[in-house]
Amino acid sequence: MTSDRNDRNVIWFDGYVKREERNKKYGHKSGVVWLTGLSASGKSTIAHHLEKKLFEEGVKVYAFDGDNIRHGLNSDLGFSPEDRRENLRRIAEVAKLFVDAGIIVLAAFVSPFKKDRELVKSRFSKDEFIEVYVKCPPEVCELRDPKGLYKKARQGLIKGYTGVDAPYEEPENPDLVIDTTKLSVPEAVDLLYDYIKKRGWLEA
Amino acid sequence: MTSDRNDRNVIWFDGYVKREERNKKYGHKSGVVWLTGLSASGKSTIAHHLEKKLFEEGVKVYAFDGDNIRHGLNSDLGFSPEDRRENLRRIAEVAKLFVDAGIIVLAAFVSPFKKDRELVKSRFSKDEFIEVYVKCPPEVCELRDPKGLYKKARQGLIKGYTGVDAPYEEPENPDLVIDTTKLSVPEAVDLLYDYIKKRGWLEA
Repeated sequence: MTSDRNDRNVIWFDGYVKREERNKKYGHKSGVVWLTGLSASGKSTIAHHLEKKLFEEGVKVYAFDGDNIRHGLNSDLGFSPEDRRENLRRIAEVAKLFVDAGIIVLAAFVSPFKKDRELVKSRFSKDEFIEVYVKCPPEVCELRDPKGLYKKARQGLIKGYTGVDAPYEEPENPDLVIDTTKLSVPEAVDLLYDYIKKRGWLEA
Repeated sequence: MTSDRNDRNVIWFDGYVKREERNKKYGHKSGVVWLTGLSASGKSTIAHHLEKKLFEEGVKVYAFDGDNIRHGLNSDLGFSPEDRRENLRRIAEVAKLFVDAGIIVLAAFVSPFKKDRELVKSRFSKDEFIEVYVKCPPEVCELRDPKGLYKKARQGLIKGYTGVDAPYEEPENPDLVIDTTKLSVPEAVDLLYDYIKKRGWLEA
């Protein structure tokens, strides 16, 4: 790809509605809750149930997950390490726009590589980012396998599948660990809800 | 870029909060108002003033413009025809997410090529997309030149600048034309506001 115009010609436009005004009007802070974990660990399920709970309480919230993003914005990307990185870079930038728009983003992505998660995290300040490790052993995820993808990966029909023939690097210092072999979905949702509340995000 | 995994393995996740529920809760519809026109035609100014007006009325609204998107999501793209196309493709996909989240998007982009605008439009239904042509002759835009970019383009310091050495294809059938040589900013904002209202977007 070519760039005909120099970066210095692009001037940031501050806009007339500030994020702080949105936070005040909506009655809560905005930020990103990033759920990382293996496929079938329960990330998306927790994210979407929490989305519903928060929405019903009047919180402006939106859940991203690997599947709906990969159908549109990132439909040009595959699952090689480079494409996974670009996938996450773009997601982080879109999440920034939502956070600027006053919205709490629940982002559920396998995001298996530590350095890619660090790249995402680096785009946000500490008080607007929560890293959640949705923990579940690969053998349990593989038993769940709701989309039959582990099976396909074992058969060699999918290559580079995290937990089968591609690594997952566990977070070393996540803000919260949710062990989905020990908690039910409602318990996991409540745990995360309480943590977000404790962090002060549910007030302006 | 390589794709190791087949598209059919990506399953759309419907989520638990439907767009219709958001529209109902927020008291208005969601959709995209796309403002196309030359640099310095007044697109961003109109978008950001309208954003403020709608925000103050309680509408969930967010303005995108070329500059803030190009700093983040599309910082890897330049201004060649291919990059302009990819720039707009991604913007359309991000706008889709915002619309799904119940938000009215005000998108101000030069978007000089008809086929690229058609690509954007094709991602939305007729009742969720408004095309606005912000009309201003190139010689007037060049006199305004708030960022000094026309001057740089004339000096050859910027190549492929729309209105100088790259074409702008006028929309043939926009929903609304705003002639910024005839209307003040408040008049332009009111015109667009009234049009959005007439289209029924400001009620659920």
